[in-house]
Amino acid sequence: MFVPRKILEDKLKQILTGDIGQGDVTAQAIIPPNLMVIAIVLAKEAGTVAGIEEAVILAESLGLKGTAKVTDGSAVENKQVLMEISGDAQTLLCLERTLLNVLSRMSGIATATRTLAQKLQETGCKARIAATRKSAPGLLYFDKKAVLIGGGDPHRLHLDDMVLIKDNHITIIGSVEEAVKTAKTNTSFTKKIEVEVTDSSDALRAAKAGADIIMLDNFEPAQAKATAEILSRMGFGDVLLEISGNVTGENLLEYAEADVDIISLGFLTHSAKALDISLEIIKE
Amino acid sequence: MFVPRKILEDKLKQILTGDIGQGDVTAQAIIPPNLMVIAIVLAKEAGTVAGIEEAVILAESLGLKGTAKVTDGSAVENKQVLMEISGDAQTLLCLERTLLNVLSRMSGIATATRTLAQKLQETGCKARIAATRKSAPGLLYFDKKAVLIGGGDPHRLHLDDMVLIKDNHITIIGSVEEAVKTAKTNTSFTKKIEVEVTDSSDALRAAKAGADIIMLDNFEPAQAKATAEILSRMGFGDVLLEISGNVTGENLLEYAEADVDIISLGFLTHSAKALDISLEIIKE
Amino acid sequence: MFVPRKILEDKLKQILTGDIGQGDVTAQAIIPPNLMVIAIVLAKEAGTVAGIEEAVILAESLGLKGTAKVTDGSAVENKQVLMEISGDAQTLLCLERTLLNVLSRMSGIATATRTLAQKLQETGCKARIAATRKSAPGLLYFDKKAVLIGGGDPHRLHLDDMVLIKDNHITIIGSVEEAVKTAKTNTSFTKKIEVEVTDSSDALRAAKAGADIIMLDNFEPAQAKATAEILSRMGFGDVLLEISGNVTGENLLEYAEADVDIISLGFLTHSAKALDISLEIIKE
Amino acid sequence: MFVPRKILEDKLKQILTGDIGQGDVTAQAIIPPNLMVIAIVLAKEAGTVAGIEEAVILAESLGLKGTAKVTDGSAVENKQVLMEISGDAQTLLCLERTLLNVLSRMSGIATATRTLAQKLQETGCKARIAATRKSAPGLLYFDKKAVLIGGGDPHRLHLDDMVLIKDNHITIIGSVEEAVKTAKTNTSFTKKIEVEVTDSSDALRAAKAGADIIMLDNFEPAQAKATAEILSRMGFGDVLLEISGNVTGENLLEYAEADVDIISLGFLTHSAKALDISLEIIKE
Amino acid sequence: MFVPRKILEDKLKQILTGDIGQGDVTAQAIIPPNLMVIAIVLAKEAGTVAGIEEAVILAESLGLKGTAKVTDGSAVENKQVLMEISGDAQTLLCLERTLLNVLSRMSGIATATRTLAQKLQETGCKARIAATRKSAPGLLYFDKKAVLIGGGDPHRLHLDDMVLIKDNHITIIGSVEEAVKTAKTNTSFTKKIEVEVTDSSDALRAAKAGADIIMLDNFEPAQAKATAEILSRMGFGDVLLEISGNVTGENLLEYAEADVDIISLGFLTHSAKALDISLEIIKE
Amino acid sequence: MFVPRKILEDKLKQILTGDIGQGDVTAQAIIPPNLMVIAIVLAKEAGTVAGIEEAVILAESLGLKGTAKVTDGSAVENKQVLMEISGDAQTLLCLERTLLNVLSRMSGIATATRTLAQKLQETGCKARIAATRKSAPGLLYFDKKAVLIGGGDPHRLHLDDMVLIKDNHITIIGSVEEAVKTAKTNTSFTKKIEVEVTDSSDALRAAKAGADIIMLDNFEPAQAKATAEILSRMGFGDVLLEISGNVTGENLLEYAEADVDIISLGFLTHSAKALDISLEIIKE
Repeated sequence: MFVPRKILEDKLKQILTGDIGQGDVTAQAIIPPNLMVIAIVLAKEAGTVAGIEEAVILAESLGLKGTAKVTDGSAVENKQVLMEISGDAQTLLCLERTLLNVLSRMSGIATATRTLAQKLQETGCKARIAATRKSAPGLLYFDKKAVLIGGGDPHRLHLDDMVLIKDNHITIIGSVEEAVKTAKTNTSFTKKIEVEVTDSSDALRAAKAGADIIMLDNFEPAQAKATAEILSRMGFGDVLLEISGNVTGENLLEYAEADVDIISLGFLTHSAKALDISLEIIKE
Repeated sequence: MFVPRKILEDKLKQILTGDIGQGDVTAQAIIPPNLMVIAIVLAKEAGTVAGIEEAVILAESLGLKGTAKVTDGSAVENKQVLMEISGDAQTLLCLERTLLNVLSRMSGIATATRTLAQKLQETGCKARIAATRKSAPGLLYFDKKAVLIGGGDPHRLHLDDMVLIKDNHITIIGSVEEAVKTAKTNTSFTKKIEVEVTDSSDALRAAKAGADIIMLDNFEPAQAKATAEILSRMGFGDVLLEISGNVTGENLLEYAEADVDIISLGFLTHSAKALDISLEIIKE
Repeated sequence: MFVPRKILEDKLKQILTGDIGQGDVTAQAIIPPNLMVIAIVLAKEAGTVAGIEEAVILAESLGLKGTAKVTDGSAVENKQVLMEISGDAQTLLCLERTLLNVLSRMSGIATATRTLAQKLQETGCKARIAATRKSAPGLLYFDKKAVLIGGGDPHRLHLDDMVLIKDNHITIIGSVEEAVKTAKTNTSFTKKIEVEVTDSSDALRAAKAGADIIMLDNFEPAQAKATAEILSRMGFGDVLLEISGNVTGENLLEYAEADVDIISLGFLTHSAKALDISLEIIKE
Repeated sequence: MFVPRKILEDKLKQILTGDIGQGDVTAQAIIPPNLMVIAIVLAKEAGTVAGIEEAVILAESLGLKGTAKVTDGSAVENKQVLMEISGDAQTLLCLERTLLNVLSRMSGIATATRTLAQKLQETGCKARIAATRKSAPGLLYFDKKAVLIGGGDPHRLHLDDMVLIKDNHITIIGSVEEAVKTAKTNTSFTKKIEVEVTDSSDALRAAKAGADIIMLDNFEPAQAKATAEILSRMGFGDVLLEISGNVTGENLLEYAEADVDIISLGFLTHSAKALDISLEIIKE
Repeated sequence: MFVPRKILEDKLKQILTGDIGQGDVTAQAIIPPNLMVIAIVLAKEAGTVAGIEEAVILAESLGLKGTAKVTDGSAVENKQVLMEISGDAQTLLCLERTLLNVLSRMSGIATATRTLAQKLQETGCKARIAATRKSAPGLLYFDKKAVLIGGGDPHRLHLDDMVLIKDNHITIIGSVEEAVKTAKTNTSFTKKIEVEVTDSSDALRAAKAGADIIMLDNFEPAQAKATAEILSRMGFGDVLLEISGNVTGENLLEYAEADVDIISLGFLTHSAKALDISLEIIKE
Repeated sequence: MFVPRKILEDKLKQILTGDIGQGDVTAQAIIPPNLMVIAIVLAKEAGTVAGIEEAVILAESLGLKGTAKVTDGSAVENKQVLMEISGDAQTLLCLERTLLNVLSRMSGIATATRTLAQKLQETGCKARIAATRKSAPGLLYFDKKAVLIGGGDPHRLHLDDMVLIKDNHITIIGSVEEAVKTAKTNTSFTKKIEVEVTDSSDALRAAKAGADIIMLDNFEPAQAKATAEILSRMGFGDVLLEISGNVTGENLLEYAEADVDIISLGFLTHSAKALDISLEIIKE
């Protein structure tokens, strides 16, 4: 997901332009032009920070100086300074909310991901936390990047980077087996093929038909474990297993014991809780 | 916030285009072209629905037929059908996730807003729930519209529609009084002027200087109530009071009793919990 | 209306790109590449200059050096040098017309506004000159900013920053009173409410219904004055009065005596007369 | 300058989107959704109408029905109905000002052009009125099209469609002769070459060097006439002569007698006076 | 690579808008408005047609009627009618060249791909023809789609849909082995990993390190065959082998016998020969 | 066709953004951030280079340092270094393919143009090689610029810069004569008028009607020569003659002897063969 800084800047400036509207009437009315100020960006609670790269780019794209005090992925404490920004006061005030919105959302997502990823790591199980495409509308890139920074797997990004056969596709095609076979024939050699199944016999059929990854949809932990064992016994130990649905922060470890490879969690991005971060101006 | 449908369509299609990338390789590999299907969009939990207008526009912007079964703002039950979509299967599958992302986020925000707004209504207090500009990046319009549908006040949209003097402005200007006075002189007659204060004496100074709205930042309920009384006694009963900071679902009613006009809540939009909604294809 | 410089640059570069087409065939045919030249931008008549900020940004956005010799809002004489530009000759020639078009239009608007604003100031009356939304298509931002620089009030910018109930709204709703009442109920606390009326009894009803501003449409000076007196007598002295329609440079002072707050003039922007400004290259 | 309707629609919708901002708060607050209304667009003074095509496209691009009652280029009387629009009231109100801004500016330009073009026609002289590139910023297309509708010549559109060597080019190159010769060598066979001269000897040199068109800059009528005679006598009667600078509505006919081919007038577009046009809703 | 038709329309209209410039001066000067005509699009040589979907969308996006007479992928003869277009003559003429440019390029690419793909098929070898990212600038989507229609594999589309470690990456990392191992650790489970090697020992190391696909760069046919055998013998028969570089229409079959899976050919897209196609208007 | 560098940068960055998709997963997975590298861009075959300006701008637009080692239009040898690029490794790798695609296509077109232009030059004939509008879709600007660099004439760019009456226009209008006459009346004085004819009598009629340029469509060399003589004899020696259709590299000189002014060749741009150019990283 590396994007050259100047391209990322364009994405961010588009968000900023939308936020500003016809202009900042408050800054214009009361802030003198060309007044230089310094501001600090502060965590107001502990967490894993993400979006520092974006925040620095946003600041610099407007001609401000942005200096990161932590790197993306750092664990930060309450009251810790995340970055310093200096430059024209009107510009800085105009940017404040957009910059904080990016930073708090990405940090919130990274924090939640990190917490769960560490839980898994502590159990020593092989499973990885992954995101889904259930993001805030239009924020796929930033939401997924935050998951990555938090130690998760971004999963598929656009609809173009893997074949993922879901329930609705199967409703149309008729069977998991038929769907995977058709996909094998019609898909570029560059793509993996994943398929969603609802029971272990379909999982076995999918593996036989050549699926690279099988998504166990709404499986109980025990059912997931049994399916993993069947596949392994039948010689499909290389097929990756993804658990999706029903997993919460609470039952995560039960699933972790089921010998699956990926645990994907929609709430990481669709119901992200922002990390509390603020910006304070220090007049020079 | 009325936007002609065709303009709204352009906003939504931009989100959609970003989501799709180079194309849907799954639909192409396994779904026959020109296959007509019907799908229903279903609530998977109870709540207040918002984004139905957007979902219908998204569907129709791609040449699908979208029929709303509920209107924005309706209370819906678990398993209730929200809309029906029919048309080309490949197109519908390509749209599914974007449509659900818009609908679940807006419905999640509307549901949270409605819950709190009803709490206030039941106490008979005059205060209204309001949003802030703490939205997901770039989603100001949709997040605010969801608050409105849920019965809240969208508050300021862009930086251009009201003067709002916050802590950082005052740090630069030196005093609340000076800031409000300067704003009165330099601002168009079409704009209201709001100022954030941290104690009741500044609230009084702001009122005297001509502020239309005073934001009580991180006030305790009792402190807010006392401030409202002072202002009223001093003849500034017309000045609107807005509580901001520290308010949660739990202590909301304590603030409601403080005789303020607006209670603004950042978490409505910055930490929105999506409503669970899904799309099911029914092959024709 | 403060917009960060880099955002303003994007607006201006979009205009420039549209102007250039496939490229400048004259510069390419006869001007050597990488030839450094200096140019001056000259007023060819006296007036109030506006658009200097834009002109400097335009020059610098193309890698030229732009140095302002006067600031926006300055009174300039015929033959006065407004700015100096230096850099690559082909680039400078390619920019010439767009830069002058921006500068002459904005200066023309500022000059007309300043002339009328000074007329009012000299009489000592409280009324301010204001713009309307009758601008050249797509030039709302630049036209309004020029009015502001000329000492006028930009009035409402977009449709989102104040409720303004006009004749067509009232035709639909049925009465001024009903319209204002409905607006009071449905509008965010952040917005003012203005309503257009055609006689003094509607003005009074509007004030009673809670309008913040009343637009007296096509009133004679005497009628405006009488209305102001009635409102004041009835305790609505705080309601702002705006005169709109029929006001010309000639009868402006008659209206000024009518004790109104704002006099809005469409011709400032819809029939703006450009200030004559030219660019002269001085070969280095 | 024919542009397919759908491409023109995109240009117009971009202007409209900029005008609307975050949405129309007035229409939302007081106008019921899905209320059908009819409106008429009325001339409030006599003139030549232009922009009817654009107005109909604007209306239809938002799903309204737009019916032209006159065609572009028609002479209209005060109070004449120019078009009828019907459809959703909120949408129509949201469009009103943008539609009128386009229509009044284009009609104003067409009216001024027609008046002067007719003056010339009545004298029987061969000269044609032409526009310049001195338009409102970004409005090149619409301003030039209005001139064309009014019976004028749009002249060069972008910088890419003819070589036009002006004073600043000559300052750099050194002489008219050298500039034209260089241009002849380096320019595509598809382009004409025009050059600006300040006296008749340069006009002759330009013709000898192969210029297709010669612009007589700030010539007195007599001087222009003399130059035309010299060129004709020397065998350059095919070279087109354009008068530019110093021409006003008053002295136009003096120039017309000078046997020139084109009289170009910056004020047609840089200081266009809008035609007074309004929109009246008739509730259904 | 399925893209909803309306999204594809936007891509195509952007190309069209760029082509048109300020407008079609020829159509405007000599073609009456609202004249209905019919045109046929004709192959002027035999080949495999591609871009019919795009051509129909282009026509319909401008309000013309476009009727396909063949489907994408059809073998067509010289003089065969590919589609019929009817509607407004000015619009149709304005579209002609852009439509033909899309259709001839895509058909040229499909024709070349089909010819080579059939050659391979006739030998009965398993290898597939594939495209590379060496397309005309900005035409990745259309060039790859044409390859797909011609029976080839589009290969990786953007930089986001597979890890492809090439010579320059290895120069930086130091060794094929290290590069593949690092990629395995840091890459999402949804992506395949391909690596370019220059000899068979690196191919073996890549396979051991876990590469999914190995690109044999500039291998001689015999060398490729030997490498395939080594990998198979060492138990890496599942790893896909891609031949790249040095393959021409002439030596293709020699490579086909080398037991590789994919033969990728840059010239299919970077040096595509357009299929000769023209448009003829038949006046109604 | 001079375009200011910053405007050209925007065109190029748009192509780049389309190429990158959601990000470069390879660079991210295996290349350390902030690693400085140097790369050289090398010709892999001899030819005429074009696109160096674009390549430098592309590199610098991403914050890399790009240094040209040859200028556009230079004849280069196999293995010659064309430019050097240095900077952040991830960014450079992300840019590699887009930069090479631009450079190889433009150089391929310039090389073919140069070869044919030199052939003509050696015969001493006056005819010039010209491009047509048969380019790759959306690449009009770059394709035409490459022809210019190769020593050809770009011909008409957009549809707005010359009247060009082709077979389809004449089908509609009825006759060449009528078409040219109508065009003379309705076209701006700034435009030339060209018309396509299929025999010498229509050529003569076109000249009499006032065409500036006559395109001899699919004429045999002898027929072209005869037509040139007739026109000259009838006093239309000033009318430019363009040969179009049927001209190949082989028969070019036969046409050159026909005393025509322009020989336009579609294959230069519609079937351009890329020049082989590659980029090699040298780790610092």
